[in-house]
Amino acid sequence: MDPVVMGTSTMNLDERFLSFGFPFVRLSPVGGLSDDMKKWQTAKNKNSLVRKLELSDKGKGFIELLQQLTICDSVSDKDFEDRFKELSTRAENHQVFVIEARSGKIVATGSVFIERKFIRNCGKVGHIEDIVVDANARGMQLGKKIINALTDYAHSMGCYRVILDCSVENKAFYEKCGYKQKEIQMVKYFI
Amino acid sequence: MDPVVMGTSTMNLDERFLSFGFPFVRLSPVGGLSDDMKKWQTAKNKNSLVRKLELSDKGKGFIELLQQLTICDSVSDKDFEDRFKELSTRAENHQVFVIEARSGKIVATGSVFIERKFIRNCGKVGHIEDIVVDANARGMQLGKKIINALTDYAHSMGCYRVILDCSVENKAFYEKCGYKQKEIQMVKYFI
Repeated sequence: MDPVVMGTSTMNLDERFLSFGFPFVRLSPVGGLSDDMKKWQTAKNKNSLVRKLELSDKGKGFIELLQQLTICDSVSDKDFEDRFKELSTRAENHQVFVIEARSGKIVATGSVFIERKFIRNCGKVGHIEDIVVDANARGMQLGKKIINALTDYAHSMGCYRVILDCSVENKAFYEKCGYKQKEIQMVKYFI
Repeated sequence: MDPVVMGTSTMNLDERFLSFGFPFVRLSPVGGLSDDMKKWQTAKNKNSLVRKLELSDKGKGFIELLQQLTICDSVSDKDFEDRFKELSTRAENHQVFVIEARSGKIVATGSVFIERKFIRNCGKVGHIEDIVVDANARGMQLGKKIINALTDYAHSMGCYRVILDCSVENKAFYEKCGYKQKEIQMVKYFI
């Protein structure tokens, strides 16, 4: 059983997300692993966690990880704390998950927020955003672990569907996570 | 000047959205207009409004309008009120706009919610959802009015971009609204 599937647990969401560990992930035959990852590989007796973002994660490379995804200048401690607290006040509707390596470095993250609609009998939709796995930790299915956790969170919140936007190049990855292409994304930038 | 462009107004957002009218919209040469629309067409001396959704709009065909978009069973007054109040508590982050015809019927709607991120210097992104124009009111640029109003709202909230998902068939419409295709949308349904 995939340890991030939590449908039958009787724990509350916090307990579930903070406690479920997953076995050491299978390494891809692709090389290029950092020292951090090699240490993690050898720590097979300990589990790593998909967990909620914590305030201290800024000091564990969370912003640097996001910089691998897109434009993300360095964020001051004050700005990070303000945004963290802002999201915490609406935690039920907006979750940021991370995977922390044994080294203490954040190596994967993703977020989901819950949209409340009038359609579908006043239904809810989960929106997954900002998925990124550290370049040195790819091929270890960490992205899939994050996606599964975010998807399960949206499901547990009563969403009738979850959506995300991705590049054509990443389509196959999300198909392996159980997603199907439906529409196209349109964008307007102000800056 | 397009009256839904409000960037330089000194009014607060509520005042702006409740007060800006737009001139009577140009009719498409395409026929099929309902009596309601014909009345509206002749009422050129009065402006119609893009405004926020109100609780009383359920009695003005708001749900029936959404039923033209997707699955939307009839919603009880209680469920509608609960969802309306829920969204009202987070109005800054989630707006539903409507256009009401002179007849008192809601003929166009759309929503936008504001996502707060860590990337882009703790930036914000607007997500536009659930755009629909009454079948009898199409060809009058009401969809564009709604999109412009939602886009301007996101801009006024400090978003660095606005995104939406649409079918390939509707791509040209959104391009006319200033949007460009970027990625693809992936979906997972739970029901």
